[in-house]
Amino acid sequence: MSEGSLEGLIDALRRLPGVGVKSAQRMAYHLLQHDRTGAERLALALQHAVSHVHHCERCHTFSEARVCATCLDPQRDARQLLVVESPADQAALERSGSYRGLYFVLMGRLSPLDGIGPADIGVHPLLDRASDGVVQEVILATGFSAEGEATAHVLAAALKARGLSVTRLARGVPVGSELEYVDLSTLAHALHDRR
Amino acid sequence: MSEGSLEGLIDALRRLPGVGVKSAQRMAYHLLQHDRTGAERLALALQHAVSHVHHCERCHTFSEARVCATCLDPQRDARQLLVVESPADQAALERSGSYRGLYFVLMGRLSPLDGIGPADIGVHPLLDRASDGVVQEVILATGFSAEGEATAHVLAAALKARGLSVTRLARGVPVGSELEYVDLSTLAHALHDRR
Ligand SMILES: [Zn+2]
Ligand SMILES: [Zn+2]
Repeated sequence: MSEGSLEGLIDALRRLPGVGVKSAQRMAYHLLQHDRTGAERLALALQHAVSHVHHCERCHTFSEARVCATCLDPQRDARQLLVVESPADQAALERSGSYRGLYFVLMGRLSPLDGIGPADIGVHPLLDRASDGVVQEVILATGFSAEGEATAHVLAAALKARGLSVTRLARGVPVGSELEYVDLSTLAHALHDRR
Repeated sequence: MSEGSLEGLIDALRRLPGVGVKSAQRMAYHLLQHDRTGAERLALALQHAVSHVHHCERCHTFSEARVCATCLDPQRDARQLLVVESPADQAALERSGSYRGLYFVLMGRLSPLDGIGPADIGVHPLLDRASDGVVQEVILATGFSAEGEATAHVLAAALKARGLSVTRLARGVPVGSELEYVDLSTLAHALHDRR
């Protein structure tokens, strides 16, 4: 029963992040047995996205237009530029509904061990973007992992050297958390950054 | 940053079994940012599989040919017919290397609550297949879930009514298990089916 097309599909599904051989097999069997329409729709969606989705020239997020809708929105405050690692982080901040400025999406973070240096995450384009004369504050919202912190550190130094004002998202206790379940390092930061 | 093609891709990925909105988003971002070749390859693999993979006429497993390689293999013992729920179960048995007969793949199991009755899992084709005059033993290897057991029960009755010899996979303690960690129902069956 193991023949070319089925094996090829299982191999291709395994390239998806978080998908091992077992789930790839289950996905392939499911699509072929119960959802051939879904399989065709996924094929078209993949092709459409690969040919239509590029990066916004200004903020580097995914966009079908040369400049994305957020960058073009006159309602947004162009004096604030918030720096995130990924479109997913940007989407999370947008869902919070508490930010009305513009974004810059690094598409990664510094990771010397993986060979990801400043050029790979667009540090120079960020410096150029932030030096447009309109931006007054750059908010660093890279993750609070070791790599995200290192990235924020490097960016802060480069931005400050250009005379830009730089802030960082606050670390602290997540809303809704019981203190006893919060890790000690977060508690220490929450205490240090108390307002 | 939420635009048509990207949203369409995330929606299409969500139809995969076990993929929620978070993982669909992660998959879409990963493909667009790091693996556009993988995205194109997956699209082609899906289209190829949908147009080339059908069901074997004899055993109903996935096959690109009208009759699959296993059914056509003269080395296999045509006197034994082993009934499984899915190609995945068939693959697991093949990997065990301990079976040299032929298969019949139900492509499901009886599940009255989900409206899956005898016609949906091909009970009549199985009866016809098993009555070819060559098959001497039908081995029921549906799962040991409630539905798998009910399916085996119904099939056993129908096959025996045609005068066919029917056996069932043995229930028992998994190889490598410590008895103390085996569930009680499995222990009871292992004791009852002792050899
Ligand atoms: Zn943009
Ligand atoms: Zn076959």
